[in-house]
Amino acid sequence: MELTDAVYRERVRRARNEMDERGVDALLLSNGADLPYLVGYQAMALERLTMLVLTADDAQLVIPAFEAARVTRRDDVFDVMSWTETEDPIGMVGRLLSERASACVGDTTWARFVIDLMRTRPDLDLRRSNEVMTPMRAVKDSAEVDALRAAAHAADVVAADLQTGRIPLIGRCEAEVSADLGRRLLEEGHDKVNFAIVASGPNAASPHHEPGTRVIQPGEVVLCDFGGTMNGYCSDITRCVHTGTIPGEFSELYAVLYEAQAAGVAASGAGGECQDVDRAARSVIDSAGFGEYFIHRTGHGIGMEAHEDPYMIEGNDDPLVAGHAFSVEPGIYVSGRWGARLEDIVVAASDGPDSLNEAEHDLMVVEA
Amino acid sequence: MELTDAVYRERVRRARNEMDERGVDALLLSNGADLPYLVGYQAMALERLTMLVLTADDAQLVIPAFEAARVTRRDDVFDVMSWTETEDPIGMVGRLLSERASACVGDTTWARFVIDLMRTRPDLDLRRSNEVMTPMRAVKDSAEVDALRAAAHAADVVAADLQTGRIPLIGRCEAEVSADLGRRLLEEGHDKVNFAIVASGPNAASPHHEPGTRVIQPGEVVLCDFGGTMNGYCSDITRCVHTGTIPGEFSELYAVLYEAQAAGVAASGAGGECQDVDRAARSVIDSAGFGEYFIHRTGHGIGMEAHEDPYMIEGNDDPLVAGHAFSVEPGIYVSGRWGARLEDIVVAASDGPDSLNEAEHDLMVVEA
Repeated sequence: MELTDAVYRERVRRARNEMDERGVDALLLSNGADLPYLVGYQAMALERLTMLVLTADDAQLVIPAFEAARVTRRDDVFDVMSWTETEDPIGMVGRLLSERASACVGDTTWARFVIDLMRTRPDLDLRRSNEVMTPMRAVKDSAEVDALRAAAHAADVVAADLQTGRIPLIGRCEAEVSADLGRRLLEEGHDKVNFAIVASGPNAASPHHEPGTRVIQPGEVVLCDFGGTMNGYCSDITRCVHTGTIPGEFSELYAVLYEAQAAGVAASGAGGECQDVDRAARSVIDSAGFGEYFIHRTGHGIGMEAHEDPYMIEGNDDPLVAGHAFSVEPGIYVSGRWGARLEDIVVAASDGPDSLNEAEHDLMVVEA
Repeated sequence: MELTDAVYRERVRRARNEMDERGVDALLLSNGADLPYLVGYQAMALERLTMLVLTADDAQLVIPAFEAARVTRRDDVFDVMSWTETEDPIGMVGRLLSERASACVGDTTWARFVIDLMRTRPDLDLRRSNEVMTPMRAVKDSAEVDALRAAAHAADVVAADLQTGRIPLIGRCEAEVSADLGRRLLEEGHDKVNFAIVASGPNAASPHHEPGTRVIQPGEVVLCDFGGTMNGYCSDITRCVHTGTIPGEFSELYAVLYEAQAAGVAASGAGGECQDVDRAARSVIDSAGFGEYFIHRTGHGIGMEAHEDPYMIEGNDDPLVAGHAFSVEPGIYVSGRWGARLEDIVVAASDGPDSLNEAEHDLMVVEA
């Protein structure tokens, strides 16, 4: 997403406010989405350190000298401090921190850098960056919601291909179908495929199944969970189809799942707590006697990352705030037999839930 | 790569030996290549922790319960300890560590887990896993060299496509050519594309250039650096081509580069030090007066990761050992004007360097 310098300036100002309120002296951001969110630069995930050192009165992007040409300069947001191949970037970060007592480190920063930093500054109190960044990143502004909606619509088109047989299933292996889903996401405008789970028959009972060589048979469920990144924001959708006449027992299971997912979405307006979404979906599944088969939380936040705060899980009593974007994806998994999951991305709005995905929610029969 | 349980058992035994020799009480492996190298399981890079806790007398793979079905069990190598959604996996790791005083953490483990672990066990002495893992992983066995050679040959085929005009250049943007290189790597047997840098004209002066919308013109250099993962092992090759008559000045630059790269390869037999490879390549470039334009180290180790120990850089006096696999990739970058890099993967062998890439090393003219 192309943003003006003014947006980044405002985000850095807010980050400094959050740091001040929480008594954090420095923010150290490397790999992952915090850094591009804050200053518009994505670090390469390599052994050569890239790290923004943000304090109350300074912002330095420590970066390998020969990657400095990649950086879009924003001189009123941050400065660039480059290190050459035989210099020690952690020493540089240590000097920038000087006598500061505490620092929040980006969640996906590599351990090697954290440990080297601990050796350089054993007295530094290390904390997690989500203290500072989650209050900002979890609440999407209208441009971010637009980007999520566009990504969701692109994923819906691919889901429709699946549901109408334009992506053939029977006689093909899971990995082939997975490759098709990925290719179609790219064709529909995604820049990157993040995952494309295809789990057929008994494999559908494994929520994070790795699509493999199993050949899809007539008369079984095929669970597809796929998403990617488009214009900097993620899609994530799950739909199940059935390759033949649906057994009555599976129809009943799916009807419960359908109702649970709708209940989760209905509980996704601003005003409640995050765990309310989980409870709403889970109570439907529990009441129908399938509770033991719903083995994961109901949802995860989504934005620049496929999974991010807030999580829709029992125990998370954080308020559900207008602008929170997250998945609602209950599942029912009967080991060795079959399984199903149904997932949409939803934005909590002040006037109720705004479900971004519009692909058919029914269990479609695909005899292709 | 499919390996027998016996191989993993032996690797775990060696890891325990390394730990014992170095006074390390525990090894904690999560994201990245250390874990699949040691026990054959690749963690999903997610907010849900997967971590092997290896001690002298125990090996537990802590994993989300619903991902446990993904694990190939090796009961005489490790046990599986799964956690359900509302449990605290870091607490579980802390209990497994019990009173142990020190732990080596995998290099690419996420900071969030390291910091949570520090809160749980503030007295634990955290060190880097490469202390234990590099002595093992950096020295490739013959099956690993075979896998690297196969990946290199596949990359050579794609390089030949580039060098003979089968991948058209003139009038197309860098990003399109990059996509072609990636697609061809997959067609030639790679499972994953790790990167495909295409840097044309003045962009060739930026070693990590992000391929973009610039349209390739006649009569300029196009630097392509691409690689992926095939059967678990990485390829990485750089070749430059020229889209028209080569200016005399650029021919001279390339001749120096060619000689420097050959000198680096010649210094890559077992017996010397890692920095000797860098010195050999750099001295050729220095002598020709281009020293200021060679702005990075000469090479990096390669194996299950695209970049790993050992690094061919001034200051690394670690011995070059038979079985070390690494890139030899000097470059000359004249900012705002042009640049070139030439890269092969080389294995240090007891009887001299074994250069895995066989694609043409000359600067080929491609008028397509």
